[in-house]
Amino acid sequence: MGATILDVAKLCGYSKTTISRAFASPEKVSEKTRTIIYKAAKEINYTPDAIARAMVRKKTDNIGFIVADQQYPVVLNPFYSPVFEGVLRTCKEKGYSVFIASESDIHISTGQVYMKKQMDGVIICGQTDKATIESFKSQNIPVVLLNNIIDMDDLVCVAVDNYNGTVQAVEHLIQRGHVDIAIISGNFSPNVYNARYRAFVDTMKKHGLEIDERFVKRVEPSLEASMECTTQLLAQKREPTAIFATNDVIAIGAMKVALRAGYKLPEDLAIVGFDDSDYSEIVEPELSTVRINKLEIGKVASERLIEIIEGKAAEKEVILSETTLLVRATS
Amino acid sequence: MGATILDVAKLCGYSKTTISRAFASPEKVSEKTRTIIYKAAKEINYTPDAIARAMVRKKTDNIGFIVADQQYPVVLNPFYSPVFEGVLRTCKEKGYSVFIASESDIHISTGQVYMKKQMDGVIICGQTDKATIESFKSQNIPVVLLNNIIDMDDLVCVAVDNYNGTVQAVEHLIQRGHVDIAIISGNFSPNVYNARYRAFVDTMKKHGLEIDERFVKRVEPSLEASMECTTQLLAQKREPTAIFATNDVIAIGAMKVALRAGYKLPEDLAIVGFDDSDYSEIVEPELSTVRINKLEIGKVASERLIEIIEGKAAEKEVILSETTLLVRATS
Repeated sequence: MGATILDVAKLCGYSKTTISRAFASPEKVSEKTRTIIYKAAKEINYTPDAIARAMVRKKTDNIGFIVADQQYPVVLNPFYSPVFEGVLRTCKEKGYSVFIASESDIHISTGQVYMKKQMDGVIICGQTDKATIESFKSQNIPVVLLNNIIDMDDLVCVAVDNYNGTVQAVEHLIQRGHVDIAIISGNFSPNVYNARYRAFVDTMKKHGLEIDERFVKRVEPSLEASMECTTQLLAQKREPTAIFATNDVIAIGAMKVALRAGYKLPEDLAIVGFDDSDYSEIVEPELSTVRINKLEIGKVASERLIEIIEGKAAEKEVILSETTLLVRATS
Repeated sequence: MGATILDVAKLCGYSKTTISRAFASPEKVSEKTRTIIYKAAKEINYTPDAIARAMVRKKTDNIGFIVADQQYPVVLNPFYSPVFEGVLRTCKEKGYSVFIASESDIHISTGQVYMKKQMDGVIICGQTDKATIESFKSQNIPVVLLNNIIDMDDLVCVAVDNYNGTVQAVEHLIQRGHVDIAIISGNFSPNVYNARYRAFVDTMKKHGLEIDERFVKRVEPSLEASMECTTQLLAQKREPTAIFATNDVIAIGAMKVALRAGYKLPEDLAIVGFDDSDYSEIVEPELSTVRINKLEIGKVASERLIEIIEGKAAEKEVILSETTLLVRATS
């Protein structure tokens, strides 16, 4: 076993409290004192025990980032990966560490939530249910919901303005003179799916445009599924002149099919995506898309959570992050 | 404060040991007993205290994933993001949680390593130094080094066979009849940079091909830097007919410049990248590249680390992960 704080105290003459403070909050201890303490600690190879400290403080400085199983993997996901990065950066700044867990990690057989690691609070991403949120709350673990909206007392939800982003995309295509506009919708959670689909329908109707049901498609949000779907769309006698895809991966699948068939973009076919993922600037021509500030969403969710952890009363609130159309080269 | 294990014991009649086991190792307790214990726990809203448990076990089940500051951000990085995913998956399977930390997070002013959170072991990615590794070891925290090779006693290094992957890429271009081959090298850590550059030079020499120094470029591995560099390359009187780029982002920057200038790929210019990142299949035409099994590297590094944490003696070892050329549409 390593040296204890008492060994350091004996060696350097400072109290346990001062030594503990020198490691936990170095800014509260003079540099001279710190130097002596660190030197003594180094000599006998002592490092402070984070577990014991957490025990005393009743606080772990850990935050859980919980992602629904159907949205795994997180860090390979072009949407959640920058959201997670935003969470990481904010937590690092404020002195918290972040664990990633899947929904199935946090349930025991009673259905009750049980976290293997103690957490000061959690951010739940995407699909979940009221019982899960209640279970956290009954254990005094604050919750912020991200990329989903559930109507519950004292629950902070941080989500995306999907409706308005879609309106901008469809208005833009109509202004460019398009009438035969297809939509390829990804199978997302009902909240996201419905907002984007409804905004498409409302905007078309507002301009008196007919929605050809052969131009309304729903697919898994993968390159393959989108390519298959686009091949069918473009094989129809009457072809759409524009495609609104409800995420970038779907839009890029459509681009691939069109480019391989010799279409010029946007002259022969206009395409607009959604998310402004990294991919949208990687492809050539670069993809017009609806920007979601994913880093910002992660930042806001963590800031709210940390405020609640540090004592602010949780109040019911829905924070909708703004979306903006980025017109690039495909529309 | 919540209920304690003693309250549960009083309510259901089982011992503290049995109750503790019902949560920590449910498979060791009969279903009947578990049901009674969970019911009692639920009634008084008890959840087991992970901190207290860690204190008793002297083990946290936490692993640190430490990334050099110049490689941040991890999860937005097309190389480290799948590596991290491989680490996450393996750790989840084996019951460990993963924290991400940057190099600067883990040093105190003495230069000594100090982890804010207690860790059972750490994976250090990319650039680091012997002193940092020694400091972990002297605190009995096992280390595995990833994507770097340092010659130290008992150190396990998991890295990529950069040399052999490059040989395959350059041999392939030569077989396709190319003589005027340019290399655009990314500014990576010396270990990675040197292996890729050396393999390029050796393979060209082996085939008696001259290396035109105007065809040897070194850039930051960004789209912008690569586009600027490729524009210069293609403006020269004598143009290369093929470009070997030492990562996919650089290759895609070169593709963009060529496509915008009306080049047909690979007829007018062949391009091969390195990494097989997600991006390589997103672009059109799809990029020929050298595949690194990034999930596998993360998996192997975590498996080795967990073996050492769980008692296996650490032995000096360099594990080189295999690389394979994937010929797609740009070469």
